[in-house]
Amino acid sequence: MFLQIVDVLGTIAFAISGVLIAMDKRLDFFGVMIIGFVTAIGGGTLRDLLIGNTPVLWMRDANYMIIISATVILAIVFAKQLKYLRKSLFLFDTIGIGLYTTVGIEKGLDAGLLPIICIALGTITASFGGVIRDILCNEIPVIFRKEIYATACILGGIAFFLFRLLPVVDVYANIAAIVVVILVRLVAVRFKISLPSIYSD
Amino acid sequence: MFLQIVDVLGTIAFAISGVLIAMDKRLDFFGVMIIGFVTAIGGGTLRDLLIGNTPVLWMRDANYMIIISATVILAIVFAKQLKYLRKSLFLFDTIGIGLYTTVGIEKGLDAGLLPIICIALGTITASFGGVIRDILCNEIPVIFRKEIYATACILGGIAFFLFRLLPVVDVYANIAAIVVVILVRLVAVRFKISLPSIYSD
Amino acid sequence: MFLQIVDVLGTIAFAISGVLIAMDKRLDFFGVMIIGFVTAIGGGTLRDLLIGNTPVLWMRDANYMIIISATVILAIVFAKQLKYLRKSLFLFDTIGIGLYTTVGIEKGLDAGLLPIICIALGTITASFGGVIRDILCNEIPVIFRKEIYATACILGGIAFFLFRLLPVVDVYANIAAIVVVILVRLVAVRFKISLPSIYSD
Repeated sequence: MFLQIVDVLGTIAFAISGVLIAMDKRLDFFGVMIIGFVTAIGGGTLRDLLIGNTPVLWMRDANYMIIISATVILAIVFAKQLKYLRKSLFLFDTIGIGLYTTVGIEKGLDAGLLPIICIALGTITASFGGVIRDILCNEIPVIFRKEIYATACILGGIAFFLFRLLPVVDVYANIAAIVVVILVRLVAVRFKISLPSIYSD
Repeated sequence: MFLQIVDVLGTIAFAISGVLIAMDKRLDFFGVMIIGFVTAIGGGTLRDLLIGNTPVLWMRDANYMIIISATVILAIVFAKQLKYLRKSLFLFDTIGIGLYTTVGIEKGLDAGLLPIICIALGTITASFGGVIRDILCNEIPVIFRKEIYATACILGGIAFFLFRLLPVVDVYANIAAIVVVILVRLVAVRFKISLPSIYSD
Repeated sequence: MFLQIVDVLGTIAFAISGVLIAMDKRLDFFGVMIIGFVTAIGGGTLRDLLIGNTPVLWMRDANYMIIISATVILAIVFAKQLKYLRKSLFLFDTIGIGLYTTVGIEKGLDAGLLPIICIALGTITASFGGVIRDILCNEIPVIFRKEIYATACILGGIAFFLFRLLPVVDVYANIAAIVVVILVRLVAVRFKISLPSIYSD
C-alpha cells in the first residue's frame, strides 16, 4: 500500500519532469505527452525488455496510462505554477528514483540474476526514462554529465544486498535501499557534491 | 489480399520517406539503406518487442528486407524524379499509417491487451519508425513538433473500438479505422490544421 | 578457447572506443562508464532483444560487466597513453567486428532464421553498439557517414554462407567470415576506400 502510493508519486514526478523539459523545447501537445510517458515508464520498459518480461509493465496495467495522461494534461495547464513546486517535485523525483531502483532489483532477483546484474537493472529502471527523454529532445543525457544520480542508485543497490545478508526481514533491504538512494541524492544536491572529475585539464 | 497490397505500398512509402531524409543529411549508401529500413520497420519492431512477439516481424518474413532493399536502391537512383511524386508518396504514406495503426491494434488484441493499450500500440506501430529515423538523423522527431500524425492514429483507434461495439462484421472496424486516419490526416494537411498551441507566449 | 580470447579482446576494444569518444565529449565518470558498456554490449543486446533471447547476454554472464568495468576504469586512468595504442586498438576493434558478426549469424541460425536475416543480425551485432554510442553522444552515427564498416560485416556474412555450401567442417565458415570482415576493413582503411558516393553534386 505504502509502496503503491510512492510508485504513483514517483510516476507523477517523472512525468512532470518530462513535461517541463518538453515544454522548454516547445514541442506540441502530442510531443509533450510522449515525453511525459517516456520519462515515466521508459526505464521500466527497458528493464522489462532486457529480462524478457513482456508485454511490458504499462501494457499489463492501464493505470499507468491513465495516471500519466492526467498528470501531463494538468502539468501543461498549470505549467506556470509548477515552478513554485520545484522543491516538492525534486523530492517526489528522488523518492521515485529510490523506489524504481528497488523495483528493478526485485525484478532481477525474480529472474534469477546475480546481485551485480540486479543492481545494474535497478539503476536502468531508475535512470533510463530520463536518458530516453533527453535523447528524444536531442540532448546528451543529463545524467552522463553532472548529476550524482546513477551513483545514488548503485549505492542504494549495494545497501540492498548488504541488508539481505543480515538476519532481518527482506523488506528492510528495500527500505534501506530507498533511504540510501534518497539520502545520497539529497546530500549531493544540497552540498553540490558531484563525481570527482576524470579530466586533468 | 487488399491488405497485403496496401501493406507493401505503405512499407515502400515509409522506406522512401527515410531515403529522402537520409539523403538530405548526405549519409552514405549504407546509412541511407539503414534509415530506409528503420523508417519502414521501426514502428512494427518496437511493437513486437513491447508485446514479446519475437523474433520480430521482419525476421520472420524475408519479404520485408527484399522489398525495402529494392525500394531504397530505386529511390536513390531516381532521387531527382521522386520530388515530382511527392503527392503520391504522401498518399501512400498516409495509407500506410492507417494500415499500420490497425495492424498494431489487432496485435494488441491478440495479446489480450485493453483497448486503450491497443490504441497506444497502433500509434506506436504507425509513428515510431519516423521517430527512430529522426533520432538517427540527430533531429527532434518531427511528429513531436508540428504534424497531426499521432492524433490521426489515436482517432482512428477510437473509431476502431466504436465500430467493434456495433453489430457488424469485425473487418468494418479495420476499414473505419483506416478511413478515419486517412481523412484526419488529409484534412489536417489540406487545411493546415494543427494541434492547438499549449503555449501562451 | 580461441574464440573466447578474441571475444574478450573485442569487448575490450569496443569498450575502449566508447571511453575515448565519451571523454572527447567530457562526460562524467558514470557517463563514460555507460558509453563504454553500451558500445561493448549494445549490438549484442539489440540482437538478443530482436530474436527474443532474454535475459540478454550480459545479464546471463556477469563476466561482461566485470571485464567492461575494469576496462573503462583502466582506460580512464591511462587515457593519455591510449593514443599511442591506436593501431593496436584498431586491430582489436576490427577483430571484434569480425567475431561479433559470426556470433550474430550463429544466433540467427539457432533461432531458425533465413541466411539473409542472419547476415542482417550479424551486422547489427557488430555495428549497433557504435550506433547507440553515437546517438547517446548526440552525433549522427559515424557508420552512416563514412566508414566501410557494415559493408565488411555483410561481405563477411556472405562468405559465411558460401563456405557453408562447401563440403567442409562448419567452423571454416566462421573463420572465413572473420577473415573477410578483417581483410575488407583493413584494406578499406589502408587504401582509404569508401563506398561510392550516391550524390551527383
